[in-house]
Amino acid sequence: MSVAHWSLPHHDGSPVYVPEPTPELGGTVPVLLRVPRSSDVTSAWVRVIEDGEPELVRAQVDREDERDVWLRADLPVVNPVVSYRFLLDGGTHGYQWLNGTGLHGRDVADAADFRISTFEKPPAWATGTMYQIFPDRFAKSTDRPTPDWALPAAWDDPVIGEGPDTPRQLYGGDLDGVTAHLDHIASLGVGTLYLTPFFPANSNHRYNASTFDRVDPLLGGDEAMARLAEAARARGIRLMGDLTTNHCGDTHEWFQAALADADSPEAGFYFFTHHPEEYAAWWNLREMPIFDHRSLELRRRLYDGPDSVVARWLGPHALDAWRIDVANMTGIHGAIDLAHEVAVTIRRTMAATVAESFLQAESNHDASRDLLGDGYQGTMNYAAFTRPLWQWLIPPQERPYAHAKYPSLPNLPGSLVVQAMRELSGVTPWMGTVHAMNLIGSHDTHRVASLLGDPGVVDVAFGMLAAYPGAPMIYAGDEIGLETFGPEYARIPMPWDHPERWDARRLAHTRALFGERAASEALLHGGLRWLSITDDALTFLREAPGESVLVHAARAPHMPVRLPAAVVGSHLTGLAGTPDLSADRDHWVTLPTSGPAFGMWRCE
Amino acid sequence: MSVAHWSLPHHDGSPVYVPEPTPELGGTVPVLLRVPRSSDVTSAWVRVIEDGEPELVRAQVDREDERDVWLRADLPVVNPVVSYRFLLDGGTHGYQWLNGTGLHGRDVADAADFRISTFEKPPAWATGTMYQIFPDRFAKSTDRPTPDWALPAAWDDPVIGEGPDTPRQLYGGDLDGVTAHLDHIASLGVGTLYLTPFFPANSNHRYNASTFDRVDPLLGGDEAMARLAEAARARGIRLMGDLTTNHCGDTHEWFQAALADADSPEAGFYFFTHHPEEYAAWWNLREMPIFDHRSLELRRRLYDGPDSVVARWLGPHALDAWRIDVANMTGIHGAIDLAHEVAVTIRRTMAATVAESFLQAESNHDASRDLLGDGYQGTMNYAAFTRPLWQWLIPPQERPYAHAKYPSLPNLPGSLVVQAMRELSGVTPWMGTVHAMNLIGSHDTHRVASLLGDPGVVDVAFGMLAAYPGAPMIYAGDEIGLETFGPEYARIPMPWDHPERWDARRLAHTRALFGERAASEALLHGGLRWLSITDDALTFLREAPGESVLVHAARAPHMPVRLPAAVVGSHLTGLAGTPDLSADRDHWVTLPTSGPAFGMWRCE
Repeated sequence: MSVAHWSLPHHDGSPVYVPEPTPELGGTVPVLLRVPRSSDVTSAWVRVIEDGEPELVRAQVDREDERDVWLRADLPVVNPVVSYRFLLDGGTHGYQWLNGTGLHGRDVADAADFRISTFEKPPAWATGTMYQIFPDRFAKSTDRPTPDWALPAAWDDPVIGEGPDTPRQLYGGDLDGVTAHLDHIASLGVGTLYLTPFFPANSNHRYNASTFDRVDPLLGGDEAMARLAEAARARGIRLMGDLTTNHCGDTHEWFQAALADADSPEAGFYFFTHHPEEYAAWWNLREMPIFDHRSLELRRRLYDGPDSVVARWLGPHALDAWRIDVANMTGIHGAIDLAHEVAVTIRRTMAATVAESFLQAESNHDASRDLLGDGYQGTMNYAAFTRPLWQWLIPPQERPYAHAKYPSLPNLPGSLVVQAMRELSGVTPWMGTVHAMNLIGSHDTHRVASLLGDPGVVDVAFGMLAAYPGAPMIYAGDEIGLETFGPEYARIPMPWDHPERWDARRLAHTRALFGERAASEALLHGGLRWLSITDDALTFLREAPGESVLVHAARAPHMPVRLPAAVVGSHLTGLAGTPDLSADRDHWVTLPTSGPAFGMWRCE
Repeated sequence: MSVAHWSLPHHDGSPVYVPEPTPELGGTVPVLLRVPRSSDVTSAWVRVIEDGEPELVRAQVDREDERDVWLRADLPVVNPVVSYRFLLDGGTHGYQWLNGTGLHGRDVADAADFRISTFEKPPAWATGTMYQIFPDRFAKSTDRPTPDWALPAAWDDPVIGEGPDTPRQLYGGDLDGVTAHLDHIASLGVGTLYLTPFFPANSNHRYNASTFDRVDPLLGGDEAMARLAEAARARGIRLMGDLTTNHCGDTHEWFQAALADADSPEAGFYFFTHHPEEYAAWWNLREMPIFDHRSLELRRRLYDGPDSVVARWLGPHALDAWRIDVANMTGIHGAIDLAHEVAVTIRRTMAATVAESFLQAESNHDASRDLLGDGYQGTMNYAAFTRPLWQWLIPPQERPYAHAKYPSLPNLPGSLVVQAMRELSGVTPWMGTVHAMNLIGSHDTHRVASLLGDPGVVDVAFGMLAAYPGAPMIYAGDEIGLETFGPEYARIPMPWDHPERWDARRLAHTRALFGERAASEALLHGGLRWLSITDDALTFLREAPGESVLVHAARAPHMPVRLPAAVVGSHLTGLAGTPDLSADRDHWVTLPTSGPAFGMWRCE
């Protein structure tokens, strides 16, 4: 518990430690190890896999200063993904491995090796803060006739949170409504606007598209999308769409063609076990037939090449990024596993269409196998961020909160929470971690304000969202403190006309946090170096070349955390409302002991 | 340190916990969890991945007895490999995961999920004890002319252990020599005779074959192989060959054809960067050009189909198994990664040729990605067995022993050693663990007697080799205590004519251990349940339906390990010379505290 983490050797995949993050196949890539002078490490090797065989490369002193010795090894880039870890001499047994989960005094498996990919790096903009909009519930620009499948709702009506009418309740939010509120969105330091599906569908969530050819006229159609894209772009905000490559709606034109003719090309897009009655469907919901990715015609139409759905919606009139719905399932069906091929093909099409495009995956669990860099570039980070953070911050409960099929969400101490974060981040290449979609709530969860309760604890959740590596996503309405339990209930319309329902303090705090983040290279792209881990307080550095930000999150009052000025600097400038700090005359910095509380400081 | 492991919930992939180890795709497979009554677990779920998506299955009480509650879940077999772990309610935080590395009070990555494969199960005989023979050094039946490349050695000559003459020194051991000593081999309880390469080559190790078409005439040719196979088979011993699918010798007939004609089919078998001078070679040794597995003609000749090398040497006249040299590299070259495809094709050819055949891989590190059941069925287990065991048993050294490029082999306490074993076994499906080739020495290491020194410690190594899950391999000569440092020096001829150099006690002990193993279902196929782990003593159960064997290994004298009779029985019958044990009147069994010492007992 009392490990002085700041005295431990450190490496991560960030530019301080891997200055050339996208090396050439056949070349070399330098990697750096920080060895604090207080550490007992005397020398180091790097174990790197070359054509399947482990090799050792001796690390040499690159430079030294009063705090650290920097060791460097130039690794041969033999294969597209360089897999490596450090072997350290010195310490209790003269033998320690340093991999993506930290230090280990014994042999380790390869799962958490550090990884550097030669595949094209995700664009720098893609770590910008995201803002998630469920289009039916964000803002409405005009009244439109209600389609047959829908139950019309007035903007202030209560949400139908369960039962068959839940997907039918239509509030009528639209894209011009989003455009009208871009000032609000921009005020949160947002870089990417993430829209859940905008294709026509017989539901308010639109995950069961009836076509991928046009923007739903209920949302204002293609013209409204173009207006939104132009207005967002003018503010430096990119758009990310949400595509179901796993399935479509049973009303989809392709599926209808498939039903009508067992010999049609479209019939080959699906898994019919008995045409037309029986077919494979997502979670066995007949409304969502799943795609058979063995069909090359399906691939061509959906994601392979310039005429595909994936390509057509990229560009100045629309999107810079796709989020792929249930990416974890896409391409997998029984003995068929085309998951990697699908992801690589989508990515290839995107790269050929818009150079600086970005591909995000949905997954609610360990997605490491999909994040090697040639396909999905990030994933929704329930596994390595959301669940551990919730487990740290959620109060112990009599009636446990179930999440994503799990029977309970326990309250856990910081040490266990960080173990989980490190294990689940450690199996992912750094580029996957820094481009992961971090979240504290979404259209699929309770509202974070309701889940965590205590506003001070919610502050900590927002602070961690802003400060932890990854691309944070704010679910529209969380920034004004909307409260509800139940994933579907949480899809409440933004109460634009009810300022009395806005938590003004939450909004100001959120603006401060994410505004600061948008201006900080360390928070946008920096590494992650743990300095102190206790049950109630977590302390780490985000390090970029030229900038370090110290982050301290506490869920409760706690014993003082003291750090050497040699590590964090003598003068710490508080960010986002955090008071400044200075070292004492003995060159130690003592962090605030209050809690729940969140603070971050630029180290100088 | 004082965790009562015997009171913890347990699952592994052995028949006690997975009674139907090879389920049908589309069916279900029951899995069982043992919950000791002393545990604080109240209920359990199984998280299973279905088409890429985690699902939870509630476990139900299957049966109970005075010691344990057995929970059972029937898992849907949606994909060829069922990936699962247990979520346990109860305990400190009401939340624990049980996966292949043990219990975790927080979220875990998927790497160590339990895995059940629908691919054909390896044959039961393949867990039998193996005996490794380096043909040039085992026994010689007759004198033969020395070929040009070789330096003749008399049987008692010292080994040239380093330098250019090392591979040229030819003692003249042959296959009829092996046949003549089958009684010795059978006396060790051996089930599989593993021969390093027997094809002609310009070296004594023969890993640089000049043809795969015939047995080296220096070894007696095809007829000697047929005689050996028949005689071994008559004793119930199977033969395993050693094939280089990664490379061949530069004298190989295919490579010679490739050199002679850049347009030949054989030129496509290799990676020529500048024909004929420059080509890719193993470790850049020009004598060993590596194969380009994109060539379908290469595949057809080497391992794809009934006319291939792999197929032709299987059957009653020769082999039941192949060990694939540097399997970890085979098929991987730069951006090309056909490793999985190569393994699957070799296995398919073998299965079509001899139903009960077995495919073993060489790897000196984490081979988990290759062991899902459709390709390699086991691997040389340096990673999860040899290195951790050596690290536990090796004395602290002034001059550290380097192994396989690692700068040192540290001395580590039992707790760290078991962590390494569990992590590296845990990422491998159970079938991969139980069919792993465990070893304490080979033609690529020091002699174990020299490495570990103290004969009592060597006893422990042999005991662990006999008792730990996997297929143990005895390197010829280790059973009589041969000593030398240096991998090449260790290739000393068997001193058949020098009984004074035999360690008779070692031989008797080895015969007792492996004779016992050959007769024990628990040791051949049973599960692994840790009961006690301390720095100096490791205690576990091997459990099969109807038989449990208790194993206790100590590297030094230690505090008493006490186990409840409810767990290990009241009367313990000592095996392989171990004295019997009984429970005391309070129903506890106290294990011997001496060390170094090894004991095993059948529990009754």
